[in-house]
Amino acid sequence: MSFKLTILGSSGALPAHGRFPTSQYLCVQNRHFLIDSGEGVQIQLGRYQIPFHKINHIFISHLHGDHYLGLMGLLFSMHLQKRSNELHIYSTPGLDEIITIQLKHSQSVLNYAIHFHSFHSEEQTILFEDEVMTVETIPLRHRIPCSGFLFKEKIKTRRMDKTKLQDGMLLQHIASLKMGNDIKDEAGNMIYRNEDYTLAPRPSFSYAYCSDTAYNEKAIEQLRGVDLLYHEATFMESEKEKALETFHSTAADAARMASAAGVKKLALGHFSARYKDLDPLLEEARAIFADTALAIEGETFELEA
Amino acid sequence: MSFKLTILGSSGALPAHGRFPTSQYLCVQNRHFLIDSGEGVQIQLGRYQIPFHKINHIFISHLHGDHYLGLMGLLFSMHLQKRSNELHIYSTPGLDEIITIQLKHSQSVLNYAIHFHSFHSEEQTILFEDEVMTVETIPLRHRIPCSGFLFKEKIKTRRMDKTKLQDGMLLQHIASLKMGNDIKDEAGNMIYRNEDYTLAPRPSFSYAYCSDTAYNEKAIEQLRGVDLLYHEATFMESEKEKALETFHSTAADAARMASAAGVKKLALGHFSARYKDLDPLLEEARAIFADTALAIEGETFELEA
Repeated sequence: MSFKLTILGSSGALPAHGRFPTSQYLCVQNRHFLIDSGEGVQIQLGRYQIPFHKINHIFISHLHGDHYLGLMGLLFSMHLQKRSNELHIYSTPGLDEIITIQLKHSQSVLNYAIHFHSFHSEEQTILFEDEVMTVETIPLRHRIPCSGFLFKEKIKTRRMDKTKLQDGMLLQHIASLKMGNDIKDEAGNMIYRNEDYTLAPRPSFSYAYCSDTAYNEKAIEQLRGVDLLYHEATFMESEKEKALETFHSTAADAARMASAAGVKKLALGHFSARYKDLDPLLEEARAIFADTALAIEGETFELEA
Repeated sequence: MSFKLTILGSSGALPAHGRFPTSQYLCVQNRHFLIDSGEGVQIQLGRYQIPFHKINHIFISHLHGDHYLGLMGLLFSMHLQKRSNELHIYSTPGLDEIITIQLKHSQSVLNYAIHFHSFHSEEQTILFEDEVMTVETIPLRHRIPCSGFLFKEKIKTRRMDKTKLQDGMLLQHIASLKMGNDIKDEAGNMIYRNEDYTLAPRPSFSYAYCSDTAYNEKAIEQLRGVDLLYHEATFMESEKEKALETFHSTAADAARMASAAGVKKLALGHFSARYKDLDPLLEEARAIFADTALAIEGETFELEA
């Protein structure tokens, strides 16, 4: 039932101080997602021993190079490693063209299929849904079309109270109890009252990824109460003008967003090359929103009860 | 008068063991060249403190990802660092299209001009020439169009013998003596006999870069006597069939090429991920051609008298 995020890159557009451009790996209940794919993402996946053949869904927030330039190398390496599973890539329009032209000029035919899903960054769109979770876009405010992503677990099943398990209980009884039903006989007499045998579901978690955006009031409702918010913090308040001009956020902006949306925890990333020491950014944010961390290479964030 | 090569990446198609895909930086008499641009090249340029704003000429051998995927990130970083100098990029056809489409989708207008020069890999072509050197293509044998590059200094001027400098010698006399002329007066009488005042020129050096090729007999004449030959050595002889099938070379192939062409020194690179320890490749080559080295990250090769 794990929900775990691993940071692969924390750098803004210019990689510096050993930091890599943006990418993150998220594992939710054995579903493996890659979020953005900055240059060197395959090196970082290797460094943190993430089995990249398991990744079937890649989400690209926008087509600035520092968010996707590692993708092509990863696709080629998946091919060389004999991947056969289909791969789904979600992005703003254009990435299919960028990839296709490079496959053409390298005369490559990959031994797996890629499905491109393009989305429009102005709308909230559900990109992925299965029985346990959804992934939807978060419209952001950047210089070019750009979306964040909200990963949300659905409500989980109730859990059997193991101290109450009875001889003679059938598997279909247990399955039905987990779904919240009472078990009755054919005549309608109660056999097992749900509340006597089950416990509340484990909590469902949510993670919001907000990459490359100016402070974006419109996103607050969508981010309301998420367990973990990643928000870019390219600059500090002392560079506020530069942030406004380039449609980026300050550490304080990120913290104000976390506070306004009442999230549980905030993680900062996408740091400008001008900051070697990141502690001042962390302090700037913590003055506004206490539970803030730096989303730096190798850091993991595990959501659990 | 320096002629110095720095290795930025030594890996074959799959980066492994901390190795980066192929790229090299060459400085010849204050001309700064980048040769191939594998993923992460900008990180490697930073690591070895190479001032990448000085690079005005980039040579891409072929359009397999491990030889060019770092280029786009470098171009964006040059832009962010306010480059204004024109940049020349030489490659087989298609790279202009790959770059242009990525600029389009990122809505970027670079603040410097790029001049694309495409060449045909079957012919020897001079790509660059100035007063001190030339760069020409070396046709190679790979799965897709691919060329190596031969960097050759022209014959240098004669040097003044400082022990013979005379009072009354004019600057134009010195310049003319360096060009190999005698100095005579208007009546044709000898003033300074060239051989009395000058020494032989310093040697001119040459470097041949042979990336991604099967053993290629046709290149031998062009490589004859070069001071330094870089030759790919993706495999060992024990993987000869794999080498033939993928149009790559073994370490022994590289050494045979060095021997047949009578080069002075051989450097091996483009190592398959299957080899963590590279010493066996070095030994395989040295058994055939003694003066062989590994072209691994951070290694430099300086040509001097």
